[in-house]
Parts: sequence; C-alpha cells; structure tokens
Amino acid sequence: MNIEIINIGDELLIGQVINTNASWMGEQLILSGFRAGQFTIISDSREHILEALAGAEKRAQVVLISGGIGPTRDDITKHTLCEFFNTRLVFNEEAYRDVEALFARRGYPVTELNRLQAELPETCTGIPNKLGTARGMWFEKDRNGGGKTIFISMPGVPFEMKAMMTDYIIPRLKERFNTPYIHHKTILTQGVGESFLAARIESWENALPTHIKLAYLPQPGIVRLRLTGEGKDEKILHQQIDSEVVKLQGLIPQYIFGYDLDTLELVVGKLLKERNATLATAESCTGGTIAQMITSIPGSSAYFKGSVVAYSNEIKEHILGVSPETIEKYGAVSKETVTEMAIGLQQRFDADYAIATSGIAGPDGGTAEKPVGTTWIAIAAPDEVFAEYYLFGDSRERNIRRTSLQALNLLRKKLLQ
Amino acid sequence: MNIEIINIGDELLIGQVINTNASWMGEQLILSGFRAGQFTIISDSREHILEALAGAEKRAQVVLISGGIGPTRDDITKHTLCEFFNTRLVFNEEAYRDVEALFARRGYPVTELNRLQAELPETCTGIPNKLGTARGMWFEKDRNGGGKTIFISMPGVPFEMKAMMTDYIIPRLKERFNTPYIHHKTILTQGVGESFLAARIESWENALPTHIKLAYLPQPGIVRLRLTGEGKDEKILHQQIDSEVVKLQGLIPQYIFGYDLDTLELVVGKLLKERNATLATAESCTGGTIAQMITSIPGSSAYFKGSVVAYSNEIKEHILGVSPETIEKYGAVSKETVTEMAIGLQQRFDADYAIATSGIAGPDGGTAEKPVGTTWIAIAAPDEVFAEYYLFGDSRERNIRRTSLQALNLLRKKLLQ
Repeated sequence: MNIEIINIGDELLIGQVINTNASWMGEQLILSGFRAGQFTIISDSREHILEALAGAEKRAQVVLISGGIGPTRDDITKHTLCEFFNTRLVFNEEAYRDVEALFARRGYPVTELNRLQAELPETCTGIPNKLGTARGMWFEKDRNGGGKTIFISMPGVPFEMKAMMTDYIIPRLKERFNTPYIHHKTILTQGVGESFLAARIESWENALPTHIKLAYLPQPGIVRLRLTGEGKDEKILHQQIDSEVVKLQGLIPQYIFGYDLDTLELVVGKLLKERNATLATAESCTGGTIAQMITSIPGSSAYFKGSVVAYSNEIKEHILGVSPETIEKYGAVSKETVTEMAIGLQQRFDADYAIATSGIAGPDGGTAEKPVGTTWIAIAAPDEVFAEYYLFGDSRERNIRRTSLQALNLLRKKLLQ
Repeated sequence: MNIEIINIGDELLIGQVINTNASWMGEQLILSGFRAGQFTIISDSREHILEALAGAEKRAQVVLISGGIGPTRDDITKHTLCEFFNTRLVFNEEAYRDVEALFARRGYPVTELNRLQAELPETCTGIPNKLGTARGMWFEKDRNGGGKTIFISMPGVPFEMKAMMTDYIIPRLKERFNTPYIHHKTILTQGVGESFLAARIESWENALPTHIKLAYLPQPGIVRLRLTGEGKDEKILHQQIDSEVVKLQGLIPQYIFGYDLDTLELVVGKLLKERNATLATAESCTGGTIAQMITSIPGSSAYFKGSVVAYSNEIKEHILGVSPETIEKYGAVSKETVTEMAIGLQQRFDADYAIATSGIAGPDGGTAEKPVGTTWIAIAAPDEVFAEYYLFGDSRERNIRRTSLQALNLLRKKLLQ
C-alpha cells in the first residue's frame, strides 16, 4: 500500500518554514503500520497542484495533502481540488455551525470569510476541525483497473493538521486497510555512541524475531533505540517486545535512562520528587544549561532550589566557597575545584544533591594539557561526593549539551543506588 | 528558470530526520536570485530515483539532488545516475588523492570502500568535497528543443552539502544563468507582534519600490523583516535598501535590536565588551535560560560573571539578599522583589549590570491577581535600577523565551543610553 504526501506552500520552498509537517506525518504513518513513499512540496499554484495530484494518483492508493487553506490565503487548494475532481463548492451547514460554535467560545464575530470557508466541494466528506475554521476534505476517486484512490486534504497549520490526523484520518485508514497491530517501544540511552552501541548489541539485534525491527535514532548526546513489532495479537506482541527489552536491559544497563517520551530532566525530576529530595547546580562550562533543562519541567520548583552559574573564579570562591589555593594549584577545570564547587553549593543552598560542572567548552581556552572538550563533573550526595572526567569534542554547543546530559545521568544513577 | 530539488533517503520519509537540507537549499537559492519550484523526497530505491529524475527533467532546467552517497550506504544514487545518463563508473585519480589527503590529515587509513567512492560516472564533472569523502557530480543533458538540463548530485550530510553549494554550485549557477544582482538586508525586531508591526509600517511597505520586496519571518518572541532587492547595479541597490532601512529605523526604533545574523545575546555581548563592563543574571522564572543564551557565545567569559538561579525564596534571601519582609509583603513575583534581586546580585557578584527575572511561567501557580504569564524584569545599572511589568501568555516554554529576550533587549537599550 503506497501513501504519498503533498505539502503546498511557497513558504516551504523559499526556506522560510522548515517542513516539519511532512516528517511528522511520515513518522505517524510508520507508527500506524503504513509507509510514505514520497513527499512532494509545491507552490500555491493551480497548475502545480494539478500536476502533483495527477502524478501521485499514478503511484499511490492514498494521497495526504496539507496546506493552502488558511483564512489569509486564496484557498487555492480547495478550488483546485474542485477542478481535479470535477465538482463544485456548496455551502455546508454543519461546517458553518462548527465555525460559529468555535468563534462563540473565543468571543469573536463570524465574518464573511468564514462563511466562504464553510463551502466544501460537493463530492467530498468534510473532516471536522476542532482547532480551526477550515475543514479537512476526504475524496475517493475510481482507479483505472478497479478500486479507489483516496485523497485527503488538511490545513497546513501544524496543530490543526495533527489533531485531524490523530483523531480522524489515521483511525479510518487503519480500519479501511486492515493494517496489522503495531507496537513500538523506544529505549533511551546516554553516554555511548551509535557505532559502539551497535557493536555491543549486535548479536541481540541479529536474533530479533523477523516481525520485530530495530531503528537507531541518534540525537546529540543521546541514542534512541526503537523496537517496532507487527502482529495480529496485541497481547502476545506486547509480551514479545517486553521480553526483548528485558534482554537489552541485561546487555546495556549502564546506558539506559528511560523509555518512550522520557527525558533525563523528567526522569531525574521524578526520582527527586519520589525521594522528597532537593537539587541545586553549580555550573561553569554548562553556563546554566542544566538549570534551564530542569526548570523547563512544570512543577520543578518542588525539588529544584536553584543554581549558581560561576563563570568567573571570584564567583567560584565567594559564592561557592572554593578555596583560592585549590584554583591556584589545580586550575578551575580540575577534579579538586569541581568537587569543592559541588560541596560548597550543597551547603550554601541547603540542597540534598548538587551537580557541579567545569570544563573547556571551546572554541578557545584549550591547552596541550587541557584541550578543548576537557570536562569535570561532580555530584554531591548526602552520603558522598564524587567527580568524573570526560574528554568531549571541539564543538562548544555539543560540549555544553553532552556535559549537561552526562551530569543528569550521573545524578540519576546515584539516585537509584 | 525553474530549479527543482530531489532529496533521497528513507530516513526522511519515516520522520527520523527532519528535512532541513531542502529548506536550507531553498533559502540559499532565493538569496542568490533563483527559486525552487518543487522539492521531491523519495526513498533510496533505483526505480523511485529514476522516476523522480525523469519527472524533474520535464519541468526544470536545474535539478539539485542530495543524499544516498554516504560510506555506509549502497551508493544507490551514483549507480542510478549512471543508468539515467547512460554512462559507467570510472576510477577518478584526483578524487582518490583528495580522500587520501583528507584521511592523512585525520590520521585514518584509506579503505577499499574509499577506493570505490573515488569512482565517478564518466560523463560528469566531479565537485570537490573539502569535508568528506564523496565528491559531488555535475551532469548536463541535452533537452528536447535545445539547451541543456543540469543535474547536480551532492552528499546528504548537511555540512558537506552546504559547503559544496556555497563554494562551488551557487557561484557557477549564477555565472551560467546571469542572474540579476540580489541584495538582502534583514532587520531584527523584538517585543512586538507580527500583525501590530505590519499595521505600524504599512504605508512604508506599500511605498517600497517594486524591485524591493519585504518578507516577515516570525520566530517566538522575535520578528525578522527581510528586504530583498533585485537590480543591475550593485552600488545603487545597496543605497536604495540602506535608505529604506533608515526610514524603517525612524518608524520603529524601539523594536529594532540588530541586523542580519545578529542575536540579542551577541549584540549585548558586544556592547558590554566595548564598554569593558560586566554582567550577571538573577533568574527565577527564566531558570537559567538567560545565562545559557549569554554563555552560548564563545568568549562570553570576558564579560559574563555568572548567574544565580533563585527558584526558592530562601535562595532569593540568602544568596541574593532579598529581604524576607519584601517577599512576605509583595510576593516573589513583584516589582519590589525583582528589584532587590537585581541590586543584591549586582553587589554580591561585583557586576556593572545585573538582570533579574521573576514571573509565573505556568502552567500552574497562577492566581486571579497574578495569572500565568505575569512577569517582572529588573535591570540594575551603575546609575539606576528599574523594573518592568509584562503579561505574557499561558505557554511555559514561550513565557520563558519571551522573558529572556525581553530582558536582554531592556539591557541593550540601557547600554545604548
């Protein structure tokens, strides 16, 4: 079964907007047992839309179209779809009532433009839009040689399109095409590169049953492993995937920090909350990034006391209580300094746990002895203080990111001891 | 002149990788006086590549192709291009020497795979790749009715593709198609919404000469205005655009913070450096985001002393010296508290300037009197302290971002006084 995606919009072609709609749709299809064979991105022009529709019709059984419908546009998609399907626009009472209800909730008046938006091609089935004024449109067209090709048009506004896909389109496509049951489980790892990880789990991967596939999804500092299983019995499939996850946990326990939508800041936050414990961070090379990650989680004020970003040595001394002799003797980027930073912060902020970072993020500041990428991370816990050394790369941005993730993972492991 | 882009790669279709290559290429074409008419994203399969090439050939004079070349892949693109252009692979001595030189610099041995990578289709011109092992390929094919269609194949690795486009492909396309001279100037604004800005500069926009176009490029908290002029005389065009920028500066001086590739953290950093002044931040609702932004700039340690993320009231009191009575009487989110935070930090960190933030970022913590989005920002300068009130929206992420940008812009204006 071949699905194609057509995204309409000049803003996509001139690089003004990155086409996240297409990749989101592609991923949702995979997660539902389908697969997109082509994305076609075209301008808001009648000729171009007609050509893309005709091209997709030759190859695909389902064509998903987004864009070209919003209230400030010329509604070129709707008019062109009428032409392509040889039909006409008719006023749709139900669509109009939905817009009236939406606007009443928001306290806006309904305009003449909204009345025009309630006109739909006569031969399509309208798709409700809970979050906006333009309905989706579901067309079916006889195919040469039998069967039908389905064309589905959606707004280009990401959250409207996503709600329509999730609530209406994907469930109906699954029903129609009787796809197998699909189950996904993502295992999140930190602190290990993709190729090293691949070598470490190679025999496990090769022994996976044929109906369970593995995908590597690397991000800076993190590698996600996604298992996708396909089967007829939901319960058996879940059991099979769970048992593969258990095997993986046995192989690489030290790298796994979570599953599916977890993040390190979320996992660490949950652990602190469960233990009724508090955290503070003393950041030199990470410059506040760890604090920023932790406080991105709603409710983090329950366990996060705060942070000192100690970019200068005087702050390390005066606010964190690092001894000037330590900095003098070992340097700011050293096991001794980062340990004193963590202890000083833990005491002064009266926190159960403290993270401290000190490193040479680059691009300048490296020496032969301490090149760019040299990093120390210390964790002060109620029962001990320890520090770890890392040598990351030469990108400032990635060094900051990797140090922050590594520090959160060190704390996570300590919390689990 | 029509250009089309073909991106090859399963990883794009399953949503594993967002197709930033296409939008970057689209933008670079616009910036050079070209325009992409279509992006086609397809899988790593021979049939699909052949079909996409044939389709693009019908519509375009130039076809840019990326992906399907990397060392771990099957080199499907190169083999399929040979088939499409009816040619064969031949070993290219120059390409091989380039790979040898690249690997010698990195200290890696050259492998058999690299030898295969040095094979290029006989009829193409190789394009040097300074950053990787796979060359680009430039083909020309006779068109029905005269002229030639240009097909250019590049690696999918973004930084290799970008260097090839910038250093080799775009200059040659400009020469070949004798494009008009194009000049761009981007004006960066903060603290004003797109629709309000549009209304404010409407008459200026309507009076722009026809060869100068305006594009609105909104990002969270920032609206970029890009002027694009097209002409034959470089000098006159620059003068015309400069004069439009001067008019705009007169209309909205309070919102403009920079031009082109400036960021607020970069502009503020430059101003501090010029004045030999130092900065520190006391962050409550922004949770370290301002520190993170400032320290993302290489060399920021010259002017940034550090930060205190004061998430709890005790930190506000003990580390920043806010009086408990102030918090008791006015609350943590108040003009009085944020002002004391800024003054306390300025003194304790011995900084010339201090920024303090306190607000209710959400989603919880709002009250009838102080709803989610309520924000106070204070700036302590050597000669004065002042605080400003804002009511942002209900998204935690956007509230943090908008507060951080607003705070940096307040400091920028103060530095310029």
